[in-house]
Amino acid sequence: MVASHVYELSTKGQGDACDLTETVAAAVAAAGIRSGVATIFVVGSTAAVTTIEFEAGAVSDFNGLFERLAPRSAEYRHHLRWGDDNGSSHVRAALLGPSLGVPFMEGRLLLGTWQQIMLAEFDTRPRNRRVVIQMIGE
Amino acid sequence: MVASHVYELSTKGQGDACDLTETVAAAVAAAGIRSGVATIFVVGSTAAVTTIEFEAGAVSDFNGLFERLAPRSAEYRHHLRWGDDNGSSHVRAALLGPSLGVPFMEGRLLLGTWQQIMLAEFDTRPRNRRVVIQMIGE
Amino acid sequence: MVASHVYELSTKGQGDACDLTETVAAAVAAAGIRSGVATIFVVGSTAAVTTIEFEAGAVSDFNGLFERLAPRSAEYRHHLRWGDDNGSSHVRAALLGPSLGVPFMEGRLLLGTWQQIMLAEFDTRPRNRRVVIQMIGE
Repeated sequence: MVASHVYELSTKGQGDACDLTETVAAAVAAAGIRSGVATIFVVGSTAAVTTIEFEAGAVSDFNGLFERLAPRSAEYRHHLRWGDDNGSSHVRAALLGPSLGVPFMEGRLLLGTWQQIMLAEFDTRPRNRRVVIQMIGE
Repeated sequence: MVASHVYELSTKGQGDACDLTETVAAAVAAAGIRSGVATIFVVGSTAAVTTIEFEAGAVSDFNGLFERLAPRSAEYRHHLRWGDDNGSSHVRAALLGPSLGVPFMEGRLLLGTWQQIMLAEFDTRPRNRRVVIQMIGE
Repeated sequence: MVASHVYELSTKGQGDACDLTETVAAAVAAAGIRSGVATIFVVGSTAAVTTIEFEAGAVSDFNGLFERLAPRSAEYRHHLRWGDDNGSSHVRAALLGPSLGVPFMEGRLLLGTWQQIMLAEFDTRPRNRRVVIQMIGE
């Protein structure tokens, strides 16, 4: 069985982080699939998905790491291409990746208590985002 | 068809690395599913999963990279929240990610000869870990 | 339903990047599966898979990031093991990961317009690569 859910949200630009856990859990519960895997996939090349303990300190540490790895104000060849200013966004998103698979059993995600599913917005401007939640199982 | 296997293990804390390949291969063989994908997912927000050539040198290089990216002794805002000392663990785990999908055919994982499935323990203290192996296929 | 496609290609060594989008899209279209997830998995421990806006500037920025994170000319313990020179390749590949899940509906991948599936070759010499595309759905 396959069930699909598309979730749309607005973000505030680079450094914004969105907790998707409740949305994914509700999609799994509504799908009527008992056991399987939910693939969470963000459409676009300047955002990414992972898990984290979703509290302000850890999220800030996470964004601090990515600012050190790929500073927003550095020079990027991508800027020369389009006149964009979001080269940092592209490399951060490629590094973290757009996709996450989370298993579920008895209709419940097998996350830890302090483990949440997070959308990391890396683009330099606010964006409307589409997140695909694809559930496969039986 | 879906088959689930939960594997529990103990780790020695930050820098410990566990080769999960045999465990996953055995779960796939036991599941009686010929072709599909095995999702390997570590529960919790201070460990992660990837593949690597599992020999001591490469594993040491891997841990050296993460120590440079997110030093254990640096200051993290997460520490202010709980009085924890594992801010480095959280950002390392979020960067690497808790989930890995490995395809299999004829009941065998399609890994390279020198490619093993590794659990990377990033927490600063020994942990009991739960790894979910969710197999979907036919 | 499960459908498998193995794609073989040759790369030019570290820094080479290959756009797999058309190959994966064709595999999905040929599989006759309407909705599901395509797992793209590169066999071996010195290459990886992600998504990126596949234009020369962004790809160059991406490789620049990995050169800063794990410089090719640095010393790696892996070199002591085999006399290899590709320690940078191993840690880069483990960091980025060999696997990517991309959902599809109505036989089409749910990628963004500027979001392509990329194989990142990290090895220090040209390689023949095998990429497994495993599609599961209904």
